[in-house]
Amino acid sequence: MSKTTIIAEPNKQEVIVHRTFEAPRELVSRMWIDPAFIPEWWGPSVMTTTVDSLEAARGGIWRFISRDPAGNEYAYNGVYHEVTLPERLVHTYEFEGIDAVALVTVTFESLPGGRTKLTETTLYPSIRIRDGALQSGMTEGMLELFDRFAALLASRT
Amino acid sequence: MSKTTIIAEPNKQEVIVHRTFEAPRELVSRMWIDPAFIPEWWGPSVMTTTVDSLEAARGGIWRFISRDPAGNEYAYNGVYHEVTLPERLVHTYEFEGIDAVALVTVTFESLPGGRTKLTETTLYPSIRIRDGALQSGMTEGMLELFDRFAALLASRT
Repeated sequence: MSKTTIIAEPNKQEVIVHRTFEAPRELVSRMWIDPAFIPEWWGPSVMTTTVDSLEAARGGIWRFISRDPAGNEYAYNGVYHEVTLPERLVHTYEFEGIDAVALVTVTFESLPGGRTKLTETTLYPSIRIRDGALQSGMTEGMLELFDRFAALLASRT
Repeated sequence: MSKTTIIAEPNKQEVIVHRTFEAPRELVSRMWIDPAFIPEWWGPSVMTTTVDSLEAARGGIWRFISRDPAGNEYAYNGVYHEVTLPERLVHTYEFEGIDAVALVTVTFESLPGGRTKLTETTLYPSIRIRDGALQSGMTEGMLELFDRFAALLASRT
Protein backbone atom coordinates (compact mmCIF):
# COMPACT_ATOMS: atom_id res chain seq x y z
CA MET A 1 0.00 0.00 0.00
CA SER A 2 1.48 3.26 -1.10
CA LYS A 3 0.54 6.57 0.46
CA THR A 4 2.42 8.61 -2.08
CA THR A 5 0.48 11.31 -3.92
CA ILE A 6 1.71 12.40 -7.35
CA ILE A 7 0.19 15.58 -8.77
CA ALA A 8 0.75 16.42 -12.43
CA GLU A 9 -1.86 18.90 -13.62
CA PRO A 10 -2.54 19.16 -17.35
CA ASN A 11 -0.65 21.90 -19.19
CA LYS A 12 1.75 22.55 -16.32
CA GLN A 13 5.50 22.03 -16.29
CA GLU A 14 5.78 20.45 -12.87
CA VAL A 15 5.23 17.25 -10.94
CA ILE A 16 4.52 17.47 -7.21
CA VAL A 17 4.91 14.45 -4.94
CA HIS A 18 3.71 14.26 -1.34
CA ARG A 19 4.52 11.54 1.15
CA THR A 20 4.20 11.42 4.91
CA PHE A 21 6.69 9.37 6.89
CA GLU A 22 6.42 8.01 10.44
CA ALA A 23 9.71 9.59 11.48
CA PRO A 24 10.92 13.04 12.58
CA ARG A 25 12.17 15.36 9.87
CA GLU A 26 15.73 15.47 11.21
CA LEU A 27 16.02 11.77 10.44
CA VAL A 28 14.02 11.91 7.20
CA SER A 29 16.00 14.80 5.74
CA ARG A 30 19.36 13.42 6.84
CA MET A 31 18.69 9.99 5.40
CA TRP A 32 17.42 11.54 2.15
CA ILE A 33 20.89 12.81 1.29
CA ASP A 34 23.03 10.18 3.00
CA PRO A 35 25.11 8.48 0.30
CA ALA A 36 25.37 5.35 2.42
CA PHE A 37 21.61 4.79 2.10
CA ILE A 38 21.00 5.87 -1.53
CA PRO A 39 21.68 2.39 -2.98
CA GLU A 40 19.00 0.97 -0.67
CA TRP A 41 16.09 3.13 -1.86
CA TRP A 42 16.87 5.35 -4.84
CA GLY A 43 15.01 4.09 -7.90
CA PRO A 44 13.26 0.76 -8.41
CA SER A 45 14.58 -2.27 -6.52
CA VAL A 46 15.32 -4.12 -9.77
CA MET A 47 18.08 -1.57 -10.41
CA THR A 48 21.46 -1.49 -8.67
CA THR A 49 22.33 2.09 -7.80
CA THR A 50 25.74 3.44 -6.91
CA VAL A 51 26.67 6.93 -5.76
CA ASP A 52 29.35 8.49 -7.93
CA SER A 53 29.14 11.79 -6.05
CA LEU A 54 26.96 13.35 -3.34
CA GLU A 55 28.27 16.57 -1.88
CA ALA A 56 25.28 17.81 0.08
CA ALA A 57 26.16 21.50 0.28
CA ARG A 58 25.58 24.59 -1.82
CA GLY A 59 27.44 24.11 -5.10
CA GLY A 60 27.94 20.41 -4.41
CA ILE A 61 27.55 17.88 -7.18
CA TRP A 62 25.50 14.69 -7.00
CA ARG A 63 25.61 11.86 -9.53
CA PHE A 64 24.02 8.43 -9.26
CA ILE A 65 24.42 5.48 -11.63
CA SER A 66 21.71 2.83 -11.90
CA ARG A 67 22.28 -0.51 -13.59
CA ASP A 68 19.46 -2.75 -14.78
CA PRO A 69 19.58 -6.57 -14.67
CA ALA A 70 20.84 -6.62 -18.29
CA GLY A 71 23.80 -4.46 -17.30
CA ASN A 72 22.63 -1.25 -18.99
CA GLU A 73 23.68 1.86 -17.10
CA TYR A 74 21.70 5.06 -16.59
CA ALA A 75 23.22 8.10 -14.93
CA TYR A 76 21.61 11.08 -13.20
CA ASN A 77 23.28 14.22 -11.92
CA GLY A 78 22.80 17.72 -10.64
CA VAL A 79 24.13 20.45 -8.38
CA TYR A 80 22.80 21.73 -5.08
CA HIS A 81 21.52 25.29 -5.04
CA GLU A 82 20.43 25.14 -1.40
CA VAL A 83 20.89 22.63 1.41
CA THR A 84 19.14 23.91 4.51
CA LEU A 85 18.33 20.79 6.48
CA PRO A 86 16.07 19.78 8.00
CA GLU A 87 13.80 22.20 6.09
CA ARG A 88 14.72 22.24 2.45
CA LEU A 89 16.81 21.15 -0.53
CA VAL A 90 16.95 22.78 -3.96
CA HIS A 91 18.95 21.11 -6.70
CA THR A 92 19.11 20.59 -10.44
CA TYR A 93 18.34 17.21 -12.00
CA GLU A 94 19.50 15.78 -15.30
CA PHE A 95 19.02 12.32 -16.77
CA GLU A 96 22.19 11.91 -18.81
CA GLY A 97 21.46 11.43 -22.49
CA ILE A 98 18.32 13.56 -22.36
CA ASP A 99 19.14 17.19 -23.03
CA ALA A 100 16.90 18.66 -20.34
CA VAL A 101 17.67 20.02 -16.90
CA ALA A 102 14.94 20.12 -14.26
CA LEU A 103 14.82 22.00 -10.95
CA VAL A 104 13.86 20.05 -7.84
CA THR A 105 12.73 21.44 -4.49
CA VAL A 106 12.28 19.07 -1.55
CA THR A 107 10.70 20.33 1.67
CA PHE A 108 10.43 18.48 4.97
CA GLU A 109 7.56 19.59 7.20
CA SER A 110 7.16 18.45 10.80
CA LEU A 111 3.75 17.02 11.64
CA PRO A 112 2.35 16.18 15.10
CA GLY A 113 3.37 12.79 16.45
CA GLY A 114 6.92 12.89 15.14
CA ARG A 115 5.81 12.51 11.53
CA THR A 116 7.18 14.30 8.48
CA LYS A 117 5.53 15.44 5.28
CA LEU A 118 7.92 15.43 2.35
CA THR A 119 7.01 17.46 -0.73
CA GLU A 120 9.09 17.14 -3.87
CA THR A 121 8.42 19.58 -6.70
CA THR A 122 10.13 18.95 -10.03
CA LEU A 123 10.01 21.76 -12.56
CA TYR A 124 10.62 20.64 -16.15
CA PRO A 125 11.82 22.81 -19.06
CA SER A 126 8.53 22.25 -20.90
CA ILE A 127 5.15 20.55 -20.65
CA ARG A 128 6.26 18.16 -23.40
CA ILE A 129 9.34 17.04 -21.46
CA ARG A 130 7.33 16.66 -18.26
CA ASP A 131 4.72 14.59 -20.04
CA GLY A 132 7.45 12.48 -21.64
CA ALA A 133 8.93 11.79 -18.20
CA LEU A 134 5.51 10.82 -16.85
CA GLN A 135 4.95 8.42 -19.75
CA SER A 136 8.38 6.81 -19.33
CA GLY A 137 7.34 4.93 -16.21
CA MET A 138 8.50 7.63 -13.83
CA THR A 139 5.28 7.40 -11.82
CA GLU A 140 5.67 3.70 -11.00
CA GLY A 141 9.35 4.29 -10.24
CA MET A 142 8.49 7.10 -7.84
CA LEU A 143 5.85 5.09 -6.00
CA GLU A 144 8.36 2.29 -5.45
CA LEU A 145 11.12 4.71 -4.49
CA PHE A 146 9.04 6.33 -1.77
CA ASP A 147 7.88 2.93 -0.48
CA ARG A 148 11.48 1.77 -0.30
CA PHE A 149 12.50 4.93 1.52
CA ALA A 150 9.61 4.54 4.00
CA ALA A 151 10.58 0.92 4.66
CA LEU A 152 14.19 1.91 5.21
CA LEU A 153 13.13 4.65 7.63
CA ALA A 154 10.90 2.19 9.49
CA SER A 155 13.86 -0.15 9.90
CA ARG A 156 15.84 2.66 11.54
CA THR A 157 13.23 4.04 13.94
CA MET B 1 16.83 51.10 -30.59
CA SER B 2 16.72 47.73 -28.89
CA LYS B 3 16.65 44.50 -30.84
CA THR B 4 15.90 42.36 -27.82
CA THR B 5 12.86 40.09 -28.04
CA ILE B 6 11.16 39.03 -24.81
CA ILE B 7 8.63 36.21 -25.04
CA ALA B 8 6.35 35.52 -22.09
CA GLU B 9 3.32 33.54 -23.21
CA PRO B 10 0.21 33.60 -21.03
CA ASN B 11 -0.14 30.74 -18.56
CA LYS B 12 3.44 29.56 -18.97
CA GLN B 13 6.16 29.52 -16.35
CA GLU B 14 8.98 30.83 -18.50
CA VAL B 15 10.41 33.95 -20.06
CA ILE B 16 12.48 33.61 -23.23
CA VAL B 17 14.79 36.39 -24.38
CA HIS B 18 16.49 36.54 -27.78
CA ARG B 19 19.20 38.95 -28.84
CA THR B 20 21.63 38.88 -31.73
CA PHE B 21 25.06 40.42 -31.27
CA GLU B 22 27.54 41.59 -33.90
CA ALA B 23 30.35 39.48 -32.45
CA PRO B 24 31.44 35.83 -32.57
CA ARG B 25 30.09 33.51 -29.92
CA GLU B 26 33.50 32.81 -28.39
CA LEU B 27 33.70 36.47 -27.42
CA VAL B 28 30.03 36.82 -26.50
CA SER B 29 29.97 33.75 -24.27
CA ARG B 30 33.28 34.56 -22.63
CA MET B 31 32.30 38.14 -21.86
CA TRP B 32 28.91 36.99 -20.52
CA ILE B 33 30.57 35.27 -17.55
CA ASP B 34 33.64 37.45 -17.11
CA PRO B 35 33.46 39.00 -13.62
CA ALA B 36 35.59 41.94 -14.78
CA PHE B 37 32.80 43.06 -17.14
CA ILE B 38 29.70 42.29 -15.04
CA PRO B 39 29.66 45.73 -13.33
CA GLU B 40 29.61 47.37 -16.77
CA TRP B 41 26.43 45.73 -18.09
CA TRP B 42 24.57 43.63 -15.54
CA GLY B 43 21.31 45.32 -14.57
CA PRO B 44 20.21 48.90 -15.22
CA SER B 45 22.90 51.57 -15.47
CA VAL B 46 21.42 53.50 -12.53
CA MET B 47 22.55 50.62 -10.29
CA THR B 48 26.11 49.93 -9.18
CA THR B 49 26.79 46.22 -9.41
CA THR B 50 29.62 44.34 -7.75
CA VAL B 51 30.55 40.68 -8.12
CA ASP B 52 30.69 38.88 -4.80
CA SER B 53 31.38 35.54 -6.50
CA LEU B 54 31.50 34.16 -10.04
CA GLU B 55 32.97 30.69 -10.35
CA ALA B 56 32.06 29.78 -13.92
CA ALA B 57 32.29 26.00 -13.66
CA ARG B 58 29.95 23.16 -12.75
CA GLY B 59 29.04 23.57 -9.09
CA GLY B 60 30.41 27.09 -9.03
CA ILE B 61 28.57 29.83 -7.15
CA TRP B 62 27.72 33.27 -8.53
CA ARG B 63 26.46 36.21 -6.47
CA PHE B 64 26.03 39.81 -7.57
CA ILE B 65 25.08 42.79 -5.42
CA SER B 66 23.40 45.84 -6.96
CA ARG B 67 23.11 49.15 -5.16
CA ASP B 68 20.64 51.85 -6.14
CA PRO B 69 21.34 55.60 -5.89
CA ALA B 70 19.72 55.69 -2.42
CA GLY B 71 22.15 53.04 -1.19
CA ASN B 72 19.68 50.16 -1.03
CA GLU B 73 21.28 46.82 -1.82
CA TYR B 74 19.79 43.92 -3.76
CA ALA B 75 21.56 40.59 -4.06
CA TYR B 76 21.21 37.79 -6.60
CA ASN B 77 22.81 34.36 -6.55
CA GLY B 78 22.86 30.89 -8.01
CA VAL B 79 24.96 27.86 -8.85
CA TYR B 80 26.14 26.62 -12.22
CA HIS B 81 24.76 23.26 -13.35
CA GLU B 82 26.56 23.34 -16.69
CA VAL B 83 29.20 25.59 -18.22
CA THR B 84 29.98 24.38 -21.75
CA LEU B 85 31.23 27.48 -23.51
CA PRO B 86 30.86 28.70 -26.13
CA GLU B 87 27.58 26.76 -26.48
CA ARG B 88 25.66 26.81 -23.25
CA LEU B 89 25.21 27.76 -19.61
CA VAL B 90 22.68 26.35 -17.16
CA HIS B 91 22.42 27.88 -13.71
CA THR B 92 19.99 28.59 -10.92
CA TYR B 93 18.86 32.13 -10.12
CA GLU B 94 17.58 33.57 -6.87
CA PHE B 95 16.71 37.15 -5.95
CA GLU B 96 17.55 37.21 -2.26
CA GLY B 97 14.54 38.03 -0.12
CA ILE B 98 12.13 36.37 -2.53
CA ASP B 99 11.70 32.70 -1.68
CA ALA B 100 11.80 31.43 -5.27
CA VAL B 101 14.54 29.75 -7.27
CA ALA B 102 14.46 29.90 -11.08
CA LEU B 103 16.42 27.86 -13.62
CA VAL B 104 18.21 29.73 -16.40
CA THR B 105 19.56 28.32 -19.65
CA VAL B 106 21.64 30.54 -21.92
CA THR B 107 22.60 29.33 -25.39
CA PHE B 108 24.98 31.00 -27.84
CA GLU B 109 24.37 30.18 -31.50
CA SER B 110 26.78 31.15 -34.27
CA LEU B 111 25.20 33.02 -37.18
CA PRO B 112 26.75 33.83 -40.56
CA GLY B 113 28.89 36.95 -40.61
CA GLY B 114 30.46 36.40 -37.20
CA ARG B 115 27.23 37.17 -35.38
CA THR B 116 25.78 35.39 -32.36
CA LYS B 117 22.22 34.71 -31.30
CA LEU B 118 21.85 34.55 -27.54
CA THR B 119 18.75 32.85 -26.10
CA GLU B 120 18.06 33.05 -22.39
CA THR B 121 15.26 30.92 -20.99
CA THR B 122 14.22 31.50 -17.38
CA LEU B 123 11.97 28.89 -15.84
CA TYR B 124 10.04 30.12 -12.79
CA PRO B 125 8.55 27.98 -10.00
CA SER B 126 5.03 29.13 -10.95
CA ILE B 127 3.10 31.28 -13.39
CA ARG B 128 2.31 33.64 -10.52
CA ILE B 129 5.97 34.18 -9.67
CA ARG B 130 6.86 34.66 -13.34
CA ASP B 131 4.10 37.20 -13.79
CA GLY B 132 5.20 38.98 -10.61
CA ALA B 133 8.74 39.24 -11.98
CA LEU B 134 7.44 40.61 -15.27
CA GLN B 135 5.38 43.23 -13.45
CA SER B 136 8.29 44.29 -11.25
CA GLY B 137 10.02 46.12 -14.09
CA MET B 138 12.11 43.13 -15.15
CA THR B 139 11.28 43.72 -18.81
CA GLU B 140 12.68 47.25 -18.89
CA GLY B 141 15.69 46.09 -16.90
CA MET B 142 16.35 43.30 -19.38
CA LEU B 143 16.10 45.55 -22.41
CA GLU B 144 18.63 47.91 -20.88
CA LEU B 145 20.90 45.07 -19.76
CA PHE B 146 21.09 43.60 -23.28
CA ASP B 147 21.67 47.04 -24.80
CA ARG B 148 24.49 47.66 -22.35
CA PHE B 149 26.02 44.27 -23.11
CA ALA B 150 25.79 44.94 -26.87
CA ALA B 151 27.45 48.34 -26.46
CA LEU B 152 30.23 46.79 -24.38
CA LEU B 153 30.78 44.10 -27.00
CA ALA B 154 30.88 46.74 -29.73
CA SER B 155 33.57 48.59 -27.82
CA ARG B 156 35.69 45.40 -27.77
CA THR B 157 35.33 44.27 -31.40
